[in-house]
Amino acid sequence: MKRLLCLLALLAAPIIHAQSIDRVEPPFWWTGMKHRPLQLMLHGRDLAGLVARVKAPGVTVKRTLTLPNPNYLVVDLDLAPGARPGTVMIDLLRGSQVALSTRYELRPRAPGSAERQGFGPSDAIYLVVPDRFANGDPTNDNQPELGDPVDRSNPGGRHGGDLAGISQRLDYIAGLGFTQLWPTPLIENRQPSYSYHGYSATDLYRVDPRFGTNEDYRQLVEQARARGLGVIMDLAPNHIGSGHWWLNPQPSRPADGSPTAAAPDAPSRDLPTPDWLNHPDRYVETNHRHVTVQDPYAAPSDKAGMTDGWFVPTMPDLNQRQPLLATYLVQNAIWWIEYAGLSGIRADTYPYSDKAFLARWSGAIMSEYPRLSIVGEEMTDHVSMVAYWLRGHRNHDGYVSHMPSMMDFPLHGALRQALVEPEGQGYAVGLGRLYEALVEDIQYPEPSRLVLFEGNHDTNRVFSALGEDEGLMRLALVYLATIARTPQMFYGTEVLMKSPIERSDGIVRSDMPGGWAGDSVNAFTGAGLTPTQQQMQGFVRQLFSWRRSATAVQRGRLTHYAPDRGTYTYFRTDEKTGAQVMVVLSKATEPVNLDTRRFADVLKAGSTGRELFSGASLDLGTTLVVPPRTAMVIDVTPPAGQR
Amino acid sequence: MKRLLCLLALLAAPIIHAQSIDRVEPPFWWTGMKHRPLQLMLHGRDLAGLVARVKAPGVTVKRTLTLPNPNYLVVDLDLAPGARPGTVMIDLLRGSQVALSTRYELRPRAPGSAERQGFGPSDAIYLVVPDRFANGDPTNDNQPELGDPVDRSNPGGRHGGDLAGISQRLDYIAGLGFTQLWPTPLIENRQPSYSYHGYSATDLYRVDPRFGTNEDYRQLVEQARARGLGVIMDLAPNHIGSGHWWLNPQPSRPADGSPTAAAPDAPSRDLPTPDWLNHPDRYVETNHRHVTVQDPYAAPSDKAGMTDGWFVPTMPDLNQRQPLLATYLVQNAIWWIEYAGLSGIRADTYPYSDKAFLARWSGAIMSEYPRLSIVGEEMTDHVSMVAYWLRGHRNHDGYVSHMPSMMDFPLHGALRQALVEPEGQGYAVGLGRLYEALVEDIQYPEPSRLVLFEGNHDTNRVFSALGEDEGLMRLALVYLATIARTPQMFYGTEVLMKSPIERSDGIVRSDMPGGWAGDSVNAFTGAGLTPTQQQMQGFVRQLFSWRRSATAVQRGRLTHYAPDRGTYTYFRTDEKTGAQVMVVLSKATEPVNLDTRRFADVLKAGSTGRELFSGASLDLGTTLVVPPRTAMVIDVTPPAGQR
Repeated sequence: MKRLLCLLALLAAPIIHAQSIDRVEPPFWWTGMKHRPLQLMLHGRDLAGLVARVKAPGVTVKRTLTLPNPNYLVVDLDLAPGARPGTVMIDLLRGSQVALSTRYELRPRAPGSAERQGFGPSDAIYLVVPDRFANGDPTNDNQPELGDPVDRSNPGGRHGGDLAGISQRLDYIAGLGFTQLWPTPLIENRQPSYSYHGYSATDLYRVDPRFGTNEDYRQLVEQARARGLGVIMDLAPNHIGSGHWWLNPQPSRPADGSPTAAAPDAPSRDLPTPDWLNHPDRYVETNHRHVTVQDPYAAPSDKAGMTDGWFVPTMPDLNQRQPLLATYLVQNAIWWIEYAGLSGIRADTYPYSDKAFLARWSGAIMSEYPRLSIVGEEMTDHVSMVAYWLRGHRNHDGYVSHMPSMMDFPLHGALRQALVEPEGQGYAVGLGRLYEALVEDIQYPEPSRLVLFEGNHDTNRVFSALGEDEGLMRLALVYLATIARTPQMFYGTEVLMKSPIERSDGIVRSDMPGGWAGDSVNAFTGAGLTPTQQQMQGFVRQLFSWRRSATAVQRGRLTHYAPDRGTYTYFRTDEKTGAQVMVVLSKATEPVNLDTRRFADVLKAGSTGRELFSGASLDLGTTLVVPPRTAMVIDVTPPAGQR
Repeated sequence: MKRLLCLLALLAAPIIHAQSIDRVEPPFWWTGMKHRPLQLMLHGRDLAGLVARVKAPGVTVKRTLTLPNPNYLVVDLDLAPGARPGTVMIDLLRGSQVALSTRYELRPRAPGSAERQGFGPSDAIYLVVPDRFANGDPTNDNQPELGDPVDRSNPGGRHGGDLAGISQRLDYIAGLGFTQLWPTPLIENRQPSYSYHGYSATDLYRVDPRFGTNEDYRQLVEQARARGLGVIMDLAPNHIGSGHWWLNPQPSRPADGSPTAAAPDAPSRDLPTPDWLNHPDRYVETNHRHVTVQDPYAAPSDKAGMTDGWFVPTMPDLNQRQPLLATYLVQNAIWWIEYAGLSGIRADTYPYSDKAFLARWSGAIMSEYPRLSIVGEEMTDHVSMVAYWLRGHRNHDGYVSHMPSMMDFPLHGALRQALVEPEGQGYAVGLGRLYEALVEDIQYPEPSRLVLFEGNHDTNRVFSALGEDEGLMRLALVYLATIARTPQMFYGTEVLMKSPIERSDGIVRSDMPGGWAGDSVNAFTGAGLTPTQQQMQGFVRQLFSWRRSATAVQRGRLTHYAPDRGTYTYFRTDEKTGAQVMVVLSKATEPVNLDTRRFADVLKAGSTGRELFSGASLDLGTTLVVPPRTAMVIDVTPPAGQR
């Protein structure tokens, strides 16, 4: 079949003599990778039928593949362990004649790259929307060739935040106690509008110039690492933006920065193969029925409706069943990890992609970086559906995934609901809901690797969801920081940023105060914050800074007690060191006296403690008085001689 | 340790010369069982230190065990394949002298007993509360020795229903289309009040005389079988009633039926061992925290609070960690199956028992009867907790269960909620809730063996829960009868029995009209039923009678389609025969036109159908008009030549 396609392509190829190469992707690669094959996608003019040749030790051309679109050529290389860093020459032959040549760089791999440590339960993740966090370089705000000029008055428009802005605030983020930074996508989004969020990728190998350069990104990761912050890249293998160059042929990139336009005789699209996209010719929206992916009874047409439909007309849906595209996406992820020095990936809209591809994608990445982390987004309340994607989970249909982590939407939902609903209406209501939710951890192979969040760019703001109740905010944050999960906080939560309750993306992703020159309030310096905002920011700083060294909450065994009179008590016990943390969350409106002898299973008689926020020393012998609407975090000291 | 206990018991035994035996349990047994060991519990006076001897071919005494309470003796027998039916003599020796003797009957096993077929998805179960279904024999209503005289004016009192009443209505039950009968417990409940429900067993080998005799029960099962009805016995291995003879020593049973009283010098209790009960000396109520049984983080004290606490002061909690008690309970279940000829067991309050015991109990029963069914009651919304108890489910903690079935509380809850909440508020709301709930079937090894119910003796009445909406009732019943489950209906649902929404056991379990002489309304004959009741009864009869031969809903593959404009469509396709049923549930208030081409995955083009309730012949070619608030059940006929 492939041969037939090649033949057809050859027959159909227009006779143009101006052969050229304008892109090779990945733009460069590394020697010393575990995975030896490397598939290059060459783009140019009239490449059909050329055959690649490389003369370099350890580098072998395994296959040259002509595609239906003669503007592409695919070259499969094998990089043997003996391949040396440097530049190799790729000759493209027609017959025995070299028709074209291009240089290709093989870089030396950074030491320890394969063994890099991903994020996990000892980390705390800070999520930023780069366009909305801080504008460090106003000169890059507008890039006429990309469209969508800055308009801060438009909640759905670009506001000008960038890598320079983040870079300048790394000390702030690290100072809050966070150890990982997750920026929403920084990739080029050449979209006429609504480009700020970054999920409409138009060049999978290029940071959007309005954020900075690829090199700026690499440097940000380096600067972050120097402050104890890993960086997690947000990738969306499910879809691209309608402005992607695969769909918008551009004869060449103008050097003068003027707006580009396709040549009048250019094809309206430039897809490598006709099956590169799902529903390539007619917009079909996804049915968003996540359950169909796992449901044994789902109608095949409903399954296809979920994974093959598009989100919006501006986000063409990739067909990852196309093996060349699948390889392209796998290599793209590995390229960014290796190039930028990432500690992990956040995989957007995870279940919307082809699931066989996802197994391959996650498997290839984890095989190259066994200790890396990838966290997938499965927006559901069904624990079984989240568990389905996790490595080590035995699935009903034999599906084997390689994902170390998923976003914990079920527990996120339980946390939000538990805090706002009244206590005492049943066993599984209020704090009881939170208590009972954790039984579902029996479905997870590694529950503490799940990423729990108080909010993100797709939810409303937690402070608003909690009725602007600062007491409930503190409960939410303490739970986030101390339960057996990998916590993630959304920028601005620390200064009580608000939003409507109904989904309102542009407002949820409002500008961080102080990120723009002339801002009257500055969250980074504290200037102009209300006392309440200052208190909450201080609370977050104290909590997550403490967490950095609190091994008991990072890795300790969790033991929890059924809620009692509006309070919920649990312990984290680090069995290696004996370190122990006691957490009491109270939604009660009156002080509650807890009989601590109830906790004798884990709390040694005669223990004392120090409460984190009040600094109070506590006798944990018989009674603990829990103030109303309070979260207590107690470092427990066992009686002398029992440590 | 056991030896020490024996020794202590011997030393403590009062010197009474009037040795006697008043009970041997099980009261008889069978030859030819797979499980060779048989443990007899002998009760009488001054049995400590006696040693059993049996002289019969194939019957060997393996051990005689003296208990701390000298009123008991435990004799372990081995029944070799060569053991013959008949009566054997058990001699109890003191030294070489026969101190006491008792006859013991070994019955021949009924042919095919081991291979008996339990209930499953081809069945439909009818649940009755015997005291409230029909009073066939008013002469047995009051048994002074048992207390709690009949008082029909008291919702929590005895009303007089009995085995004779059920027996007389077997034709009615079978005529409705049901194939299995589950009566709540019939076992003796010698309790001063609230004895009607049967869950406070006071003699695990005796049918309560107010219901009839053991032989009446055995005959009922025989009569039922003749009508195609299996009988499921309701057992509660978790607890007994406070009136149990283990707790209420009775020197002898008076023959004249006068109230009994313990002899003045009798001990206040007569427990075989001090650890027979949990919390034997102080009433401690269960915390009802089901999650603690599976929760990996639950505090040990909370776990114990769930399984060791009592329900109420009148229901002592059995300690199934006591190995003699465990064996007693296992043998008791097997005895009733074999004696009465049961098709299955319903296990009450399942997670409240010791879970190691439950594995042994379910394993022993299923080993003796590999095709039997047992359905356990785990009242939870957590599918993972239900799945935990099912055979074939791989558990996080290595726990291996042998239960073929559990009650499907999660789907029951989803069904109730889906029908009453408005449509269109989100993907997983209304019929969407029902649609999305089934993704959880990925957790179940054999989902269709789960027993789904519209209501039972512990819920409110479904008609009331559905706001007395007959249209919603029909949707509930059609779903129950056609989804991939084993359906169970509660008596009286067919005549729209009502109850308060808040739990109100006595009203939920109201008398079935027509079950008592002089009732002005008679559900069995139809006399006095309102037209609405008659219609619903006819609907139930038509639906479940049809189901008896509808192999597509009994075993067919389920394919369902995401709800559309207040309608939910699914198909059951029997791949063996090609039989196909299409079900459309509509909550819409207007007619909805369905484009049947959407169902092309499973519905062959050109199919026609016949709707069960209207009898209408339907062209399923392009459009199906679904009337408002209707459940359509369509037997599909593929186009000629494609069957």
